[in-house]
Amino acid sequence: MHKLQDVQNSPSDLAVDIDRVGIKEFRLPLVVRDRDAGLQHTVATVDLGVDLPAAFKGTHMSRFVEALEAWREQAPESPVPALDYRSMRGLLESVRLRLDARRAYVKFRFPYFRAKAAPATGSAAPVAYDCTMTGELTEGEHPVFTLEADVPVTTVCPCSKAISRAGAHGQRALVKLTLRMTKFEWLEEFIDIAESSGSAQVYSLLKRQDEKLVTEQAYDDACFVEDVVRRVAEKMNAHPHVSWFRVEVESFESIHCHNAFAVIERDRKPHRA
Amino acid sequence: MHKLQDVQNSPSDLAVDIDRVGIKEFRLPLVVRDRDAGLQHTVATVDLGVDLPAAFKGTHMSRFVEALEAWREQAPESPVPALDYRSMRGLLESVRLRLDARRAYVKFRFPYFRAKAAPATGSAAPVAYDCTMTGELTEGEHPVFTLEADVPVTTVCPCSKAISRAGAHGQRALVKLTLRMTKFEWLEEFIDIAESSGSAQVYSLLKRQDEKLVTEQAYDDACFVEDVVRRVAEKMNAHPHVSWFRVEVESFESIHCHNAFAVIERDRKPHRA
Amino acid sequence: MHKLQDVQNSPSDLAVDIDRVGIKEFRLPLVVRDRDAGLQHTVATVDLGVDLPAAFKGTHMSRFVEALEAWREQAPESPVPALDYRSMRGLLESVRLRLDARRAYVKFRFPYFRAKAAPATGSAAPVAYDCTMTGELTEGEHPVFTLEADVPVTTVCPCSKAISRAGAHGQRALVKLTLRMTKFEWLEEFIDIAESSGSAQVYSLLKRQDEKLVTEQAYDDACFVEDVVRRVAEKMNAHPHVSWFRVEVESFESIHCHNAFAVIERDRKPHRA
Amino acid sequence: MHKLQDVQNSPSDLAVDIDRVGIKEFRLPLVVRDRDAGLQHTVATVDLGVDLPAAFKGTHMSRFVEALEAWREQAPESPVPALDYRSMRGLLESVRLRLDARRAYVKFRFPYFRAKAAPATGSAAPVAYDCTMTGELTEGEHPVFTLEADVPVTTVCPCSKAISRAGAHGQRALVKLTLRMTKFEWLEEFIDIAESSGSAQVYSLLKRQDEKLVTEQAYDDACFVEDVVRRVAEKMNAHPHVSWFRVEVESFESIHCHNAFAVIERDRKPHRA
Repeated sequence: MHKLQDVQNSPSDLAVDIDRVGIKEFRLPLVVRDRDAGLQHTVATVDLGVDLPAAFKGTHMSRFVEALEAWREQAPESPVPALDYRSMRGLLESVRLRLDARRAYVKFRFPYFRAKAAPATGSAAPVAYDCTMTGELTEGEHPVFTLEADVPVTTVCPCSKAISRAGAHGQRALVKLTLRMTKFEWLEEFIDIAESSGSAQVYSLLKRQDEKLVTEQAYDDACFVEDVVRRVAEKMNAHPHVSWFRVEVESFESIHCHNAFAVIERDRKPHRA
Repeated sequence: MHKLQDVQNSPSDLAVDIDRVGIKEFRLPLVVRDRDAGLQHTVATVDLGVDLPAAFKGTHMSRFVEALEAWREQAPESPVPALDYRSMRGLLESVRLRLDARRAYVKFRFPYFRAKAAPATGSAAPVAYDCTMTGELTEGEHPVFTLEADVPVTTVCPCSKAISRAGAHGQRALVKLTLRMTKFEWLEEFIDIAESSGSAQVYSLLKRQDEKLVTEQAYDDACFVEDVVRRVAEKMNAHPHVSWFRVEVESFESIHCHNAFAVIERDRKPHRA
Repeated sequence: MHKLQDVQNSPSDLAVDIDRVGIKEFRLPLVVRDRDAGLQHTVATVDLGVDLPAAFKGTHMSRFVEALEAWREQAPESPVPALDYRSMRGLLESVRLRLDARRAYVKFRFPYFRAKAAPATGSAAPVAYDCTMTGELTEGEHPVFTLEADVPVTTVCPCSKAISRAGAHGQRALVKLTLRMTKFEWLEEFIDIAESSGSAQVYSLLKRQDEKLVTEQAYDDACFVEDVVRRVAEKMNAHPHVSWFRVEVESFESIHCHNAFAVIERDRKPHRA
Repeated sequence: MHKLQDVQNSPSDLAVDIDRVGIKEFRLPLVVRDRDAGLQHTVATVDLGVDLPAAFKGTHMSRFVEALEAWREQAPESPVPALDYRSMRGLLESVRLRLDARRAYVKFRFPYFRAKAAPATGSAAPVAYDCTMTGELTEGEHPVFTLEADVPVTTVCPCSKAISRAGAHGQRALVKLTLRMTKFEWLEEFIDIAESSGSAQVYSLLKRQDEKLVTEQAYDDACFVEDVVRRVAEKMNAHPHVSWFRVEVESFESIHCHNAFAVIERDRKPHRA
């Protein structure tokens, strides 16, 4: 076959280092390790990137897709890649080598499902959590992994409850938890932390007995976004393997058309009052 | 200047009539007629289209933008066009003639703001309503206008209230109202219909006295999406100038991570049970 | 257990029939029938609804989720439901009966993946198509199914090519195909129709030889959104089992920040010029 | 009036400092200073926040809205606030004082419009740029302002051009520029920098002569996302008043359904190869 010009390998017009270059919004089926079921099928949106030194005009974009495809085929137990820390490390190393780079970056965003039982009847149905797993690898260094999970909860307003004759406004809220750890923990553990920190949990299937229980539980434990963010932060601060975290709680206020939010970010050493 | 080939005017490869062809997602500043303030500045996303007979290869896309720009300049009282039925009719006619078409179509989507006073203290702040105004004009016929408004309300669940010791789950809900009328009415009138049909209204600014009032009002008037959609439908059915409507209520359930919805669509003759 | 009040079954305050009431944005893992691989794992967002006569205050929202969960368990070959026409019909009937309704409605939205080989090197990688499968069932009637697929293509502008010394502006475009059929056809067949109707197809993995081929193919077959929509319509009109279709082509114009679009909708009898 | 309990002022259950607490997604009409027209009407989505010490249970959310409303009324020349650095500093100070906080935070996101003339015919029409202006103020310190602008351009692929007999794939791309400065510069200056760094600029209105010019210009100046990001970075590095910037270029590849991206971030001292 006629040899085609490799424009990317030609010298750069402007000698400026590029921090990260690659592809975004690549969608593919994905299998994720799952504490309860072993493996879980989902779909992911993937970003892949590397650094590019000042000397080179361009990176080779097709190699990112080739790295992903080769990684899929290495997973013999399923037709699609099983995402966990070990396999992600392999993908990062493969991207770095194929692209001849010093640093590699991979981000997977995917809905993660758990069968969740209603609190009174035990009726179960899946709940979806939007999760993100990001890895960065610099040559000769340990990879850095960041985990994110968006966990819905319900909140009841303590002010509304205190001042009103009856009732209190409540709403769906989202706990957005981002973290780094020093030792592996299942995603489920952090979802549990977030879910147990609102006025009540959110479910996919509730029968009347369940609805009664959740309503009363939420009313009895009215809490602001400030309370929820502190509860999550307290548990993350106490966790033996969390080295860094950021938690944001955003509530879709039912009496307003804007939202309320609260954020706490902490490095490994807890900054407590 | 050298004459450039007009490819669009060349014959079509396939002799198929096109129902509608044009531009989408064009953004521009917009002035809208406002019942209270006279004029209101906002921004719009605009779609414009015409029909294209089988004989022609293509339409002339730049003429849609020219029609919009000429329409802006016809509005002497402000630097941007003032949208109302009369000016929209003018724009439709201009699009139809400039594109040499039988039918023209225009859709404006824009946030519409109203200063809204809190129910107890009277403290005021703007509330945004996502609105759409669509017009279609066929040569020799009357134009057809469709109005849409997304109106947030709050709902409290009657089932949760009835079965629980205290409290009841509530949430933000959206009344999505679409309608055609036989005689002009202000957008404000339909927003009022939607806002008065939930458990309580939604506000931008509420002090404690207001929050108490809204909480109690919502708890006292617990209603399902089914109740809200019927209340709106009842008022629309009774309206002297509404010839067609569709109302959908979607509530962002606070105890679930999915939503509840209900829809009623009626032609001018009310279909009542 | 203490019997809890069934508020939904109480009489309606306003005697207005509701066209459709149910749940929206319910997310779950899904297995879809796949022409090539047999079964494909993906995730779906589901809407479920029924009609509600004027006499009843509310529907029973939890039954929609129960119907979905029971449907999942009927699929013995996989831990999640395998979506096809037969199983969707079963779900519709189950929803109708569980909710004691005359009409049932189900909508599944999901990314559908196909391994797609590059045109010169044959290198393969998955392409995602956003698909929707909708079913409606009225008691005593045949169910009505509607299929939608959003298929990306590339277009090169014939006008830009004709008037310019060299080059021509090109862009990604989306063919949004919606259809009903009288006899089963695989989704793949309609994706193929859409993909073969632009200036060139869109791929996930292209090596240099492939990129050369696709670039030249697209430049040689420059076409407007009008051309693309007509090509798709022509093939849909000629299809023996398509009873109704709507095709919209939207191109993300590279020299503008707005889009161009064209729409053709036809009932089973072709309306040709 | 009966005095209502101030729950927010009660002691916190968990003594954890909150980094930021406030409101999000508040929408309002906005007037922005404009280099050419003096003032420009647009609409904004606003986030407002403060820090909250460990001792207090909650912040007072309604005061954020009151601060915004009071700020609007201080702007005598228009019915809505005119956003610039001076007025934003005033808002930050007002938020900080009203909420009794040490730090205040304000973020405005808004479309910003410029009338843009076609390069050959001079025909003009507005182009929308999604912009963000963020301010943070800590008691006793200078406020820190960050400016963001998303600027569409067109890119033509140099590899595709070099290897193909004719044509080259092109696409819309977005230059996402974020920056801090030591001395005021108009937003327009940074939009100009981004717009002049692609293969060609993007316009709202192009006649045939313009389309010819833009097509040829883009084909003659084919560039990768890597080239665009370096051109912008080079100009930002050379700018006398930019103390920090981050530029990301994302191109919506016309031959793929995923995107390409490149990022350069630099502190005030340029890090050049």
